[in-house]
Amino acid sequence: MSTGVITKRVYDFSEGGREMRDLLGGKGANVAEMTRLGLPVPKGFTITTETCIEYLRGEHTFPVGLTREVTAHLERLEQAAGKKLGDSENPLLVSVRSGAKFSMPGMMDTVLNLGLNDRSVEGLAARTSNPRFAYDSYRRFIQMFGDVVAEVSKEHFEKALSAMKARRRVEQDVDLSADDLRHLAEVFKDIYREHRGEAFPQDPREQLDAAIRAVFESWDNRRARDYRRLNRIDHDLGTAVNVQQMVFGNTGSNSGTGVAFTRNNVTGEKAEPFGDFLINAQGEDVVAGIRTPRPLAELKDEIPEAYEQLIRTMDQLEHTYRNMQDVEFTIEDGALFMLQTRNGKRSAQAMVRIAVDLVDEGVLSEQEALVSLVEPDQVRQLLLPQLDLEKAPEPLGKGVNASPGAAVGAVCFAADEAERLGKAGEHVILVRDETTPDDFHGMIEAQGILTARGGKTSHAAIVAVGMGKPAVCGVTAIRFHEDGTITIGDATFREGDRMTIDGTTGTVFAGDAPLVPPDPDNPYLAQLLEWADRARTLAVRANADTPEDAARAREFGAQGIGLCRTEHMFQGEDRLPIVQQMIMAEDAADRVGHLTTLRGFQEEDFTGIFRAMAGLPVTIRLLDPPLHEFLPDLIELSERVAVARATGRPDPEADAQLAVVRQLHEVNPMLGTRGCRLGIEWPDVYRMQVAAIMTAACRVKKETGAAPIVEIMIPLVGFEEELRIMRAEVIEVAEIVQIEQRTEVEYAVGTMIELPRAALMAADIARHADFFSFGTNDLTQTTLGFSRDDAENKFLTHYLQNNVITFNPFETIDVEGVGRLVSMAVSEARADKPGIKMGVCGEHGGDPASVMFFHHAGLDYVSCSPFRVQTARIAAARAALGA
Amino acid sequence: MSTGVITKRVYDFSEGGREMRDLLGGKGANVAEMTRLGLPVPKGFTITTETCIEYLRGEHTFPVGLTREVTAHLERLEQAAGKKLGDSENPLLVSVRSGAKFSMPGMMDTVLNLGLNDRSVEGLAARTSNPRFAYDSYRRFIQMFGDVVAEVSKEHFEKALSAMKARRRVEQDVDLSADDLRHLAEVFKDIYREHRGEAFPQDPREQLDAAIRAVFESWDNRRARDYRRLNRIDHDLGTAVNVQQMVFGNTGSNSGTGVAFTRNNVTGEKAEPFGDFLINAQGEDVVAGIRTPRPLAELKDEIPEAYEQLIRTMDQLEHTYRNMQDVEFTIEDGALFMLQTRNGKRSAQAMVRIAVDLVDEGVLSEQEALVSLVEPDQVRQLLLPQLDLEKAPEPLGKGVNASPGAAVGAVCFAADEAERLGKAGEHVILVRDETTPDDFHGMIEAQGILTARGGKTSHAAIVAVGMGKPAVCGVTAIRFHEDGTITIGDATFREGDRMTIDGTTGTVFAGDAPLVPPDPDNPYLAQLLEWADRARTLAVRANADTPEDAARAREFGAQGIGLCRTEHMFQGEDRLPIVQQMIMAEDAADRVGHLTTLRGFQEEDFTGIFRAMAGLPVTIRLLDPPLHEFLPDLIELSERVAVARATGRPDPEADAQLAVVRQLHEVNPMLGTRGCRLGIEWPDVYRMQVAAIMTAACRVKKETGAAPIVEIMIPLVGFEEELRIMRAEVIEVAEIVQIEQRTEVEYAVGTMIELPRAALMAADIARHADFFSFGTNDLTQTTLGFSRDDAENKFLTHYLQNNVITFNPFETIDVEGVGRLVSMAVSEARADKPGIKMGVCGEHGGDPASVMFFHHAGLDYVSCSPFRVQTARIAAARAALGA
Repeated sequence: MSTGVITKRVYDFSEGGREMRDLLGGKGANVAEMTRLGLPVPKGFTITTETCIEYLRGEHTFPVGLTREVTAHLERLEQAAGKKLGDSENPLLVSVRSGAKFSMPGMMDTVLNLGLNDRSVEGLAARTSNPRFAYDSYRRFIQMFGDVVAEVSKEHFEKALSAMKARRRVEQDVDLSADDLRHLAEVFKDIYREHRGEAFPQDPREQLDAAIRAVFESWDNRRARDYRRLNRIDHDLGTAVNVQQMVFGNTGSNSGTGVAFTRNNVTGEKAEPFGDFLINAQGEDVVAGIRTPRPLAELKDEIPEAYEQLIRTMDQLEHTYRNMQDVEFTIEDGALFMLQTRNGKRSAQAMVRIAVDLVDEGVLSEQEALVSLVEPDQVRQLLLPQLDLEKAPEPLGKGVNASPGAAVGAVCFAADEAERLGKAGEHVILVRDETTPDDFHGMIEAQGILTARGGKTSHAAIVAVGMGKPAVCGVTAIRFHEDGTITIGDATFREGDRMTIDGTTGTVFAGDAPLVPPDPDNPYLAQLLEWADRARTLAVRANADTPEDAARAREFGAQGIGLCRTEHMFQGEDRLPIVQQMIMAEDAADRVGHLTTLRGFQEEDFTGIFRAMAGLPVTIRLLDPPLHEFLPDLIELSERVAVARATGRPDPEADAQLAVVRQLHEVNPMLGTRGCRLGIEWPDVYRMQVAAIMTAACRVKKETGAAPIVEIMIPLVGFEEELRIMRAEVIEVAEIVQIEQRTEVEYAVGTMIELPRAALMAADIARHADFFSFGTNDLTQTTLGFSRDDAENKFLTHYLQNNVITFNPFETIDVEGVGRLVSMAVSEARADKPGIKMGVCGEHGGDPASVMFFHHAGLDYVSCSPFRVQTARIAAARAALGA
Repeated sequence: MSTGVITKRVYDFSEGGREMRDLLGGKGANVAEMTRLGLPVPKGFTITTETCIEYLRGEHTFPVGLTREVTAHLERLEQAAGKKLGDSENPLLVSVRSGAKFSMPGMMDTVLNLGLNDRSVEGLAARTSNPRFAYDSYRRFIQMFGDVVAEVSKEHFEKALSAMKARRRVEQDVDLSADDLRHLAEVFKDIYREHRGEAFPQDPREQLDAAIRAVFESWDNRRARDYRRLNRIDHDLGTAVNVQQMVFGNTGSNSGTGVAFTRNNVTGEKAEPFGDFLINAQGEDVVAGIRTPRPLAELKDEIPEAYEQLIRTMDQLEHTYRNMQDVEFTIEDGALFMLQTRNGKRSAQAMVRIAVDLVDEGVLSEQEALVSLVEPDQVRQLLLPQLDLEKAPEPLGKGVNASPGAAVGAVCFAADEAERLGKAGEHVILVRDETTPDDFHGMIEAQGILTARGGKTSHAAIVAVGMGKPAVCGVTAIRFHEDGTITIGDATFREGDRMTIDGTTGTVFAGDAPLVPPDPDNPYLAQLLEWADRARTLAVRANADTPEDAARAREFGAQGIGLCRTEHMFQGEDRLPIVQQMIMAEDAADRVGHLTTLRGFQEEDFTGIFRAMAGLPVTIRLLDPPLHEFLPDLIELSERVAVARATGRPDPEADAQLAVVRQLHEVNPMLGTRGCRLGIEWPDVYRMQVAAIMTAACRVKKETGAAPIVEIMIPLVGFEEELRIMRAEVIEVAEIVQIEQRTEVEYAVGTMIELPRAALMAADIARHADFFSFGTNDLTQTTLGFSRDDAENKFLTHYLQNNVITFNPFETIDVEGVGRLVSMAVSEARADKPGIKMGVCGEHGGDPASVMFFHHAGLDYVSCSPFRVQTARIAAARAALGA
């Protein structure tokens, strides 16, 4: 590591700025930036993120030279403050906070009041003439240090505090006297010694080094690793450590502390800035909710000068950061101190509005707004009902916001019952202690999931996110009772009682809470999409199988259909019996009869879709699933036949069906007789479909003058010869239909690239293809050897929960494996056939991270479900803008 | 195409030689070679293979200039012969034969006597003073030309010939008079006109051009394409056309014709040359079997000078070609003419003996023998019982030799019955009109397959070859009768009657024909293997799961075990109940108890295998299949439970099992919870296996002093993290066992590369692997998206029968797709970790074409079933020698 150059590991706040986020972490860089802007920031210094990694990847000891550098900075801080750490006369107190490049709730957060010990607490008491304040600060410090640095659970301390209050017969902490608090500090030290096996450290430098070490270690704790996994943050970034002089909001009525947003974080409105504050309190009191904070506007009356300065400061910060800010401040004896500023978290509604408003206000350009203010995945929430936060009642309980959106329904405690009711059309909230793979069938049918245990990496959370279904997890207040009821706090629920859960905020309500329906015409979203369309180079299509979906997709801005699956059309109540007869037909003539009937249905289907997509490309995939999917289930039939035999009541219909189903049965249907394998063995089905497609296209052209651009897609090709054969069949039928219909329609023949071999042989296959559509769902299944049906409910969940893999490859494309095949196929096919059109259909087409990859891989379009089209449009723009 | 250089499309026999096989085809090159050697060859010329491709890939018209070139060569031929084609005085007659680079029975073969017409036949009659000969030649020519050039079925001609013989009341063709034959020629011309709609062409040049065109066209006929597919011959090679002056073996008793081998083609012995001949006959008579040919030795007495010259010529040819030759000759009025020489087809026994003898005789080197005289796949036949050709009775019937080896058993006409008897341990020959996928289960249990219809591309043939099971197809003499019997000629068979089939020769026998058991100590094979081992760089291991297999593999020369599957050990009668209890265990303690019992069994298994392989590497794959494979079948259990409920007889055991089986059930088990996914979720099973392996290895080392080199292999890895976790587990357990056992054993930890993602990420995965074993079976399944269980019995058979794909990717590796992944993985893993050992396990390891690929891909070893180890050793040598 040593290169002769001395590594600088500690930066004074005056030495940094917001561009140094990598090295100083978000908190350190922002405090440095505020210092540079001349804002009132308590002084301090930052130990770099690189030092943390040096510490963790090495021997878990301070790198040589770090102690000396900390000493130098500490001395400078003492000099500037005119106080000394641990001094018995005029002690300096500091806070120690972690701060990574990206905000990470999983890490150690804060130790306040560091530097207090048995001697300096007396100095503080004398200097402030406020012994109560001094001993309160000391007992808080011992508790915080014990909890976050020394792993002595805070429950022990809280129990002692409660005992003290009980002895003194008081309700509130503030009613305890200075003597009480001094005594409490002694008790706390005893607790510390008892659980640690050593005395609470009196040497302030020892306190500081232990706190720094604890921050370093917290980077690698389980919660932090999980958080990084879920948020795809690199494990090698490290966290910085910020050491900052304490200021006190709890020195009296001219002091206070608070948090504030520069704009409304729910609606996005720029009215008065809003937030919460407490007079005579330390920051932790606001967060802990021990006292009820007051709305920020009231600060104007309490400490007007500090308020005005805060408003000006927030405005300056918003212009500097060119983003809505979330700030923390403390007022000590009337003087404002800024402790923290960061980009504020906001609802989806607020996100789109703030982005557009900031552009309108001239703060940044539309491109910058797309890159830095818009999270494309959140756009989808605008299409989900959300809890009406303004009118929402008091929540019964709070847990982890595991999967966004709100849901209302009857509570249900068992998966079987949830499945039964759900299938009967009822809206159900499945409530479980925690979910397991055994609950999967119930989760599918439920509107929302609520669990008593588990966080964002729990089975319930992972599955719910995958299904796009609201979920609240880890509501520890839920109790299950033997009489078949549950309680959440005081409220009791029987099966069937109504409940509302809000997965966006992680809250639970009794009865039907008011929901905000999605606003299809959100003007801010419309504006953002207009900007996105201007910026992006990737076209966005939708996957749609019905005229209704096609129309909706077009409303959402889809530029065509990238995948129209024809098998759903075979499943309709009016068609399935005919499909079954066709499959079970005894001779060719019989089969052709059924196919003719089906052709009529298919022509109708396609006519509706083509009308909705007139003038745009429509990619239709010929029949893909194995035929047995259209026949009764093998197990049910086997049972029926076995029972018929055992009971002596013959069932010849079941016998006949069973014979066919057995013959068509496959061990691994995913890798069996489907896609073009079906088309090659049973050409009549594909010929029928092509005839129906072309007839419908000709008809729509004659009716409306606006023909669709028909793209006929052959699924599951792995060999050049398969596509050569199928292409010849398609063209033959298409030409006949056009002659019959006396009109011509633009059409193309292409293929899915959804098998590793197809990707490897793309250059050869391209010879017979006008277009490629990467079927990344199946390509993921085969490349990874993951059967989606099996994996998502079994080993994949286990893998995600245990960090064996760090992303769900069915949500976000596996760039290294599957993505490599896609990139190879694109470049090799284009080398021989530069003009070939290439896109992706499958759910990755609506996932922002995957869209980013597809943009860079050089695809022409992505196609996704209609509800994700807007997300994809914005993601594509961000990719083009280099986000 | 035109480059200014004039392409030479026609070569006189005197212009070529055997090195020009690509351009002149095998027949043309060999005739030219014999001409060059000064042997008596009728004069002629060859039109090149390239001309054929030019013709077929163009407009199906003669390329410009070809007609002129043919004319020039024809004129030279007429000049040399002193005769003119079609001349009414002294006509030249020619034969026209196809001849590709590789012998291809699927193509048009021969037209003899071309040049005859109504005028020249008179000239021939006058010139030879033999009108009977002239008219016989004419009517033969019309029939052959009609049949092979003009597609007028020869049945029509044969019917007319039979009618003529009936009218004349004679039995033999030779009993017809000159007048009869003259009349027959007229009748044949009428037949020709009737079926062609035009007169039989009288212009000899028109005849010649039509014959040349027919040869060209025959290259692309269905049979020829099928043959090339099966034999992996490039479709772009084309066939040459040989035009050669006719000589006549049917001009009298000093004339004759025959075929001969330079050595015995069954035993390989070099005694007297042997073959067949007929006096006063044309070549086609020998082949057609109308007259019974006489053994070659008798020719010595008939025409001694020609005989002596033939023997000398054959010796010369064998030395020139350095290979056993198969020649065709004609004697015209005492003068010997050589018509053809080629490398002779031979039995596996003959193959190894001839190769060794020719090296011993100093004709070629051991390396040359391996490269040019040994077909590695045939070596496997030496391990199969073969029909004893010397003692074999007269065959009842003959068909296509669809899959080699001989089988004896009771005939069986239905797949269900074959399955039932086969499972009961009886030897069964399944006899069907033709097989379909519905017969698959019966084919698995049968010793051999016999069909009345179909050839080498039939379902029966493809499936039998895949199973390595004898099959005779297309025995058209088989008749199925309503009384449930079959007849073959005069013989009648009821179900259960004994029968013998010989798939090597395609013959069928009543009863138990004598078989030659395989000779394990064939000295010629031993010699070849010694030479092969000297030449090869690829090591050869075996796949073996039992001590018996391991010992056998070692006998066959395996240099270790490349794949020891542990799941078969779980299936034993004594273990399966414990495995089931382990899976159904209700708690960890219960499970550990069962695992301890299993560990005892596993230690025994491994101890036996390690003893057999002492000193050699043994790669053991930890448990791979999904757990539900060890439990009762879901359908059977579902039926049992349904029946129990319907009949009101509760079956709690079945209920309990069904619950577990349902929970473990997977839609696509191939892509489900198996391999390391199991190991990661259920680490105890893998830990037990590793403990058993290491304990056994330590024990064998302590007992014998010769420890095996243990290689522990983790299956189904796709992500680096999977192997990192598993490797750590394995090493932890292995170290503990060695400490407990107080001894150390060399061991390594590696992984299968059997998923496309594993191949794509090989460089990363290699970090945690001491070795890679390419599991090309599963890699083929996932890369191609072919479930082997489903494909081989369903669409893959259809694909192979219809030339959609030209090889079975489970037999021979798909070099372009799967092979590309293997090559990428090898080079990328080696780039970072040059020393990593890499091999292949799976059935491709014993397939010569695949072994060739693995050699060039740079693997260290192949591993295959014990019975293919010898084949692999020779294939590896040939690869190293550049075959």
